[in-house]
Amino acid sequence: MTQDLVARTRDFIAEHVIPVEEEFRGDVTAAGGDAARIRLQALARDAGVFAPHVPVELGGHGLGMVDRAPVFEEAGYSVLGPVALHIGAPDEGNVHLLNEVATAEQRLRFLEPLARGDVRSGFAMTEPAPGAGSDPAALRTEARQVEGGWVVNGEKKFITGADGAGFFIVMARTPGGATMFLTDADAEGVEVGRHVPTMDRSMVGGHCEMTFRDVFVPDAGVLGAVDEGFRYAQVRLGPARMTHVMRWLGAARRAHEVAVRYAAGREAFGTTLSELGMAQQAIADNEIDLEASRALLMRACTLLDAGERASRETSIAKTFAAEAIDRVVDRSMQLCGGMGVSDDLPIAWIAREVRPFRVYDGPSEVHRWSIARRAVRRITAG
Amino acid sequence: MTQDLVARTRDFIAEHVIPVEEEFRGDVTAAGGDAARIRLQALARDAGVFAPHVPVELGGHGLGMVDRAPVFEEAGYSVLGPVALHIGAPDEGNVHLLNEVATAEQRLRFLEPLARGDVRSGFAMTEPAPGAGSDPAALRTEARQVEGGWVVNGEKKFITGADGAGFFIVMARTPGGATMFLTDADAEGVEVGRHVPTMDRSMVGGHCEMTFRDVFVPDAGVLGAVDEGFRYAQVRLGPARMTHVMRWLGAARRAHEVAVRYAAGREAFGTTLSELGMAQQAIADNEIDLEASRALLMRACTLLDAGERASRETSIAKTFAAEAIDRVVDRSMQLCGGMGVSDDLPIAWIAREVRPFRVYDGPSEVHRWSIARRAVRRITAG
Amino acid sequence: MTQDLVARTRDFIAEHVIPVEEEFRGDVTAAGGDAARIRLQALARDAGVFAPHVPVELGGHGLGMVDRAPVFEEAGYSVLGPVALHIGAPDEGNVHLLNEVATAEQRLRFLEPLARGDVRSGFAMTEPAPGAGSDPAALRTEARQVEGGWVVNGEKKFITGADGAGFFIVMARTPGGATMFLTDADAEGVEVGRHVPTMDRSMVGGHCEMTFRDVFVPDAGVLGAVDEGFRYAQVRLGPARMTHVMRWLGAARRAHEVAVRYAAGREAFGTTLSELGMAQQAIADNEIDLEASRALLMRACTLLDAGERASRETSIAKTFAAEAIDRVVDRSMQLCGGMGVSDDLPIAWIAREVRPFRVYDGPSEVHRWSIARRAVRRITAG
Amino acid sequence: MTQDLVARTRDFIAEHVIPVEEEFRGDVTAAGGDAARIRLQALARDAGVFAPHVPVELGGHGLGMVDRAPVFEEAGYSVLGPVALHIGAPDEGNVHLLNEVATAEQRLRFLEPLARGDVRSGFAMTEPAPGAGSDPAALRTEARQVEGGWVVNGEKKFITGADGAGFFIVMARTPGGATMFLTDADAEGVEVGRHVPTMDRSMVGGHCEMTFRDVFVPDAGVLGAVDEGFRYAQVRLGPARMTHVMRWLGAARRAHEVAVRYAAGREAFGTTLSELGMAQQAIADNEIDLEASRALLMRACTLLDAGERASRETSIAKTFAAEAIDRVVDRSMQLCGGMGVSDDLPIAWIAREVRPFRVYDGPSEVHRWSIARRAVRRITAG
Repeated sequence: MTQDLVARTRDFIAEHVIPVEEEFRGDVTAAGGDAARIRLQALARDAGVFAPHVPVELGGHGLGMVDRAPVFEEAGYSVLGPVALHIGAPDEGNVHLLNEVATAEQRLRFLEPLARGDVRSGFAMTEPAPGAGSDPAALRTEARQVEGGWVVNGEKKFITGADGAGFFIVMARTPGGATMFLTDADAEGVEVGRHVPTMDRSMVGGHCEMTFRDVFVPDAGVLGAVDEGFRYAQVRLGPARMTHVMRWLGAARRAHEVAVRYAAGREAFGTTLSELGMAQQAIADNEIDLEASRALLMRACTLLDAGERASRETSIAKTFAAEAIDRVVDRSMQLCGGMGVSDDLPIAWIAREVRPFRVYDGPSEVHRWSIARRAVRRITAG
Repeated sequence: MTQDLVARTRDFIAEHVIPVEEEFRGDVTAAGGDAARIRLQALARDAGVFAPHVPVELGGHGLGMVDRAPVFEEAGYSVLGPVALHIGAPDEGNVHLLNEVATAEQRLRFLEPLARGDVRSGFAMTEPAPGAGSDPAALRTEARQVEGGWVVNGEKKFITGADGAGFFIVMARTPGGATMFLTDADAEGVEVGRHVPTMDRSMVGGHCEMTFRDVFVPDAGVLGAVDEGFRYAQVRLGPARMTHVMRWLGAARRAHEVAVRYAAGREAFGTTLSELGMAQQAIADNEIDLEASRALLMRACTLLDAGERASRETSIAKTFAAEAIDRVVDRSMQLCGGMGVSDDLPIAWIAREVRPFRVYDGPSEVHRWSIARRAVRRITAG
Repeated sequence: MTQDLVARTRDFIAEHVIPVEEEFRGDVTAAGGDAARIRLQALARDAGVFAPHVPVELGGHGLGMVDRAPVFEEAGYSVLGPVALHIGAPDEGNVHLLNEVATAEQRLRFLEPLARGDVRSGFAMTEPAPGAGSDPAALRTEARQVEGGWVVNGEKKFITGADGAGFFIVMARTPGGATMFLTDADAEGVEVGRHVPTMDRSMVGGHCEMTFRDVFVPDAGVLGAVDEGFRYAQVRLGPARMTHVMRWLGAARRAHEVAVRYAAGREAFGTTLSELGMAQQAIADNEIDLEASRALLMRACTLLDAGERASRETSIAKTFAAEAIDRVVDRSMQLCGGMGVSDDLPIAWIAREVRPFRVYDGPSEVHRWSIARRAVRRITAG
Repeated sequence: MTQDLVARTRDFIAEHVIPVEEEFRGDVTAAGGDAARIRLQALARDAGVFAPHVPVELGGHGLGMVDRAPVFEEAGYSVLGPVALHIGAPDEGNVHLLNEVATAEQRLRFLEPLARGDVRSGFAMTEPAPGAGSDPAALRTEARQVEGGWVVNGEKKFITGADGAGFFIVMARTPGGATMFLTDADAEGVEVGRHVPTMDRSMVGGHCEMTFRDVFVPDAGVLGAVDEGFRYAQVRLGPARMTHVMRWLGAARRAHEVAVRYAAGREAFGTTLSELGMAQQAIADNEIDLEASRALLMRACTLLDAGERASRETSIAKTFAAEAIDRVVDRSMQLCGGMGVSDDLPIAWIAREVRPFRVYDGPSEVHRWSIARRAVRRITAG
């Protein structure tokens, strides 16, 4: 069944998404923003490829992590594909988290409309320096308990999809740790500020600055248990890192295939570019990087599907893949010469999208720090 | 004297150019295109830093290659600096070439106004595939000899600054090789087509497609000797590669300094980011890459100033520096995390400018091919 | 069951093999050569860990490729472990090939004693330049058909384990292609020449030069069908590459663990070395390289166990792993400073063993060429 | 004059040193140790190439750093060349230091015989962990002031050339810092222990463990001022790093040239290996790495000759060159395939020599730490 969904996703992306992407050079805002999203998602529903990750009872295909991988990769083949299938950040991770933790009432009010694509959502964790970022312990947004609920105050930054989101999951410091809160976007005191002008352009709603000013959240808006926010963040982060890898693997494969076709058709020095040794080296290195990323991804997904936290394995897969994907796109660009650095091929806009992945979801340096510390503990204990 | 010009250039860039650059995020078209150029160049003249490379008799500072290096690096500290000082591609290289080869009449008509900045110019050599590109021997544009001159026909592509240029140096195939021709932009049959949408944004006049359709060039428009075009191209290319390196070194240093200041001010994990080992590794690697680029550049410039062709040395310096500069900017971006991938710091737009340098002026692969062949000849002969 | 064999192998290596290895600094000849082999193999039999790859009916544990991986990795933890378990090159690959292709008589005469470790064997394919090497089509050794058999003439080089081997599988050109022949080491005309002084020291019998001078091989000595030698070579090579990866992964893990323990115990700059960021980066990169190698290996082994040729996947896994393993050992060496470049730790002799793996079993460059050509065919057809 | 000395050195190395080196595969002990040294140095004297760095008044050629570079590079073309010319570590650096700091009496007694090659010397600074190493402040050897002099106690390690040295410069902690002492090798309490079995084999006298047990040094044996040891260590280290680079550049160039000649003569896939793109890439990268190392070296030497400390520049040059040289030798090895990893070519033993250079004279990580800290100070002050 997954194989069939993979094939249909591939066809859907080719037929419906890539034409839009190429017309607007990968810029979802230029393509119409939320209106484009709604139109593409309707087409995806018609094609039977919408929401592969959403549980069946909520109207999706109910795929586990291992099965998601090839489907999300096909969706990622276009930088607008994840929006079309409703599997982009942060909605995809929020569906996962809410499905794990939300109360019946929260499911009805937040999860179900989100799963259907009726609304978008935000995940408000990151803060402007010196607040929570690579170091979550630096969290500054605070929730103060009041009669019947909590009052949240704080600044957030890089909140993906915030502009136009219907609700937010907000992380705030509480007396015994951190807690996640659900709040409607139109609740009093919730303000979405300017879009941070990042180099990527495929996320509807941008990466925004936000202010929470005396925002009241009733007790029914606490997501999961009080003070357990950091733990839930981990529940969300492991799989979310892996679905990022899946999507960007598709984008990197696209760049690679575009470059190989270009090189095979380009005559140079009495042969085709694809027959020259340095080009072959770039092509082979792309193949190796893509396969190694996929192999690490599948290993981590197998563990996640088995119910493990797999923090080490998702960290390793994310770190390797984020850098490998960037290398693949860079080599593809180089292979295409002047065409490669122009928007006449999709590589330049794919490059714009994948570079930040070495920062988003934890910079490589923070992952390496964590990987090293685990290794030292394991090996010195062994 | 050079030290003084370096200092004045640094001050000029900081005071007059960076504010414009930051307001328009490194996009010269957004900043006003030719109007911005004219305004900035007037300011540069007032500051006594205009045209450091132009011979003194033509109104410039007459610097040789070794002395140009630190001045151009200061100019490149802003991506709009080279426009302001009139030392950007292709004008800078065209001044050099015309000064070497032009007749007295050509000097008067083309070189002098160009040297003053009254007009801009184009260098029309590269062609759409499968024409001249990395492999100049593939040149397809042809010049047919007629009474009193030549008729040129062909397609060109990636012609920097073409839109708005006053005249062009055109490379065309002639019976015994290739020849360079000078033609006014408004000559009949000269058409500037669309801008190739490349990722860089700092060149006034873009990188354009062009058509030469039955363009008549009188004999007086032949630049240098008939059939000597490839040789003159080398005369132009060696120094032009080196001035590219100078300018991008400035841009890379800017990214590095911005990142170091950011890291020194950013608290993380109980210290400042700049005290963490992985950040220190990035900072040290940047220092090493910048110094090595500069050292190779100076070595090649010393040879050029001594009248040598220095093809090997300029190839090595260009190849190393183009890649090193790209690495420096990439590490700087990574050091700044989310800020680094946004236009809130200049690194993201510097990255956009420097990446194509690994393609422009000969892709790294073509330079490596040439470097290797020379090495094999030298070593097997030795 | 595999888990149990993995654990017993780990214990066996620690108890019986590492003491010998450390005494003789990884040099199997210094340790006694074949005599050491026989002694260690007897211990392995007693410990129930001998010949994990040999079919059960021939006295081994009958593990498939996926199950071999962790067992061989444990054996490879010492550079003398593969000799002790009888899973080193070329015997391990020869058992595999003979088991696939040999006649009943050949099984009795060659395979069974080899499987028991009563004799060692050689695989005589590689030739001195300009003969068969990276380019098998350059094969120069020839077999001429005579009454009742064939007469083989040619030179071979880098024949692992040749000195002291009981028999050889020889690849020779035959009229319709290439053919494999089985010949006793004491057959007339078989000469083992000098050991090529390669940097590795863990292979009993060295890497030798050989001459086959009018060696008569009866028809019963043809291995498989005449003219099918290149095909069988592929049958042998895919799995043989992967068992190489398994063994070297163990060696690389050893280097990594030695380095991590060293770094955790070494005080420097007011903390331990393992807490310094640059050391953490090296440790994390080791973990990533080891996991990625393992993941690619397991992917290829899964396909091989399913009966596929998996040429692309074994090429990718071999190329990545050979380079990754070399990086891991190099970083481990660097972490240990002066100790790392001395034989006071095992890293220096592990380095000596793993470096040639980037050449043996096909240099990385040849694999990349093959990977690239497959990629171009697949993508341009797609 | 330097050019002439360069040429004579090249000829001398080719004629007298390389034959010995190749016979004994780069192992100075196998070649006869001190006896070989004495014989080769006599030949060097006859050839007029002995001691290019020694002041003229002491019988040498008196070359400054810039002029030494090409001469030392030629000497380093053989791994035994520096021994032959008397320019190896630690004697070369000790001559420099003594010439700067020694008293008239010390010159007579220590410097003059050393300059003539009548004795060898040691520089006893590094200690076993957790003593002085990358972090000199960890110095544990102590000197206690007594009547008429000092008594030195402590352990040293990795003392190059100790076995057979005539005297030592010992670094020991004194009340106000650290002090350097001169002591004869046969003074009571000076013991040279085992050779640390490091991978390199070209240093006469090995890298030894040493014990100083109640060694009395009279006041006349204090080198320079009391408590100024760390400062003198810097005086010695900067130039010593650079002469290391010079010597190893020669070794790397040898590996490169051997590989290029091999590749140019090796037929493969219907052409020569040197015409294949991946080989050309390796060759070009070698050329680039060699030129960049040389350019950084010359920049640092120019500053040293001008009397500057040039700590930043020597650190950068050492760090880049140590890694670049290792890459050059590694690529050369890979180009030669099976031959490359054997002692049939000199590359394998050159590799053994150059790898430790990334550790000796300060590991790359410590240099990077220092480079980064300087950069942060400079840039945040700017």
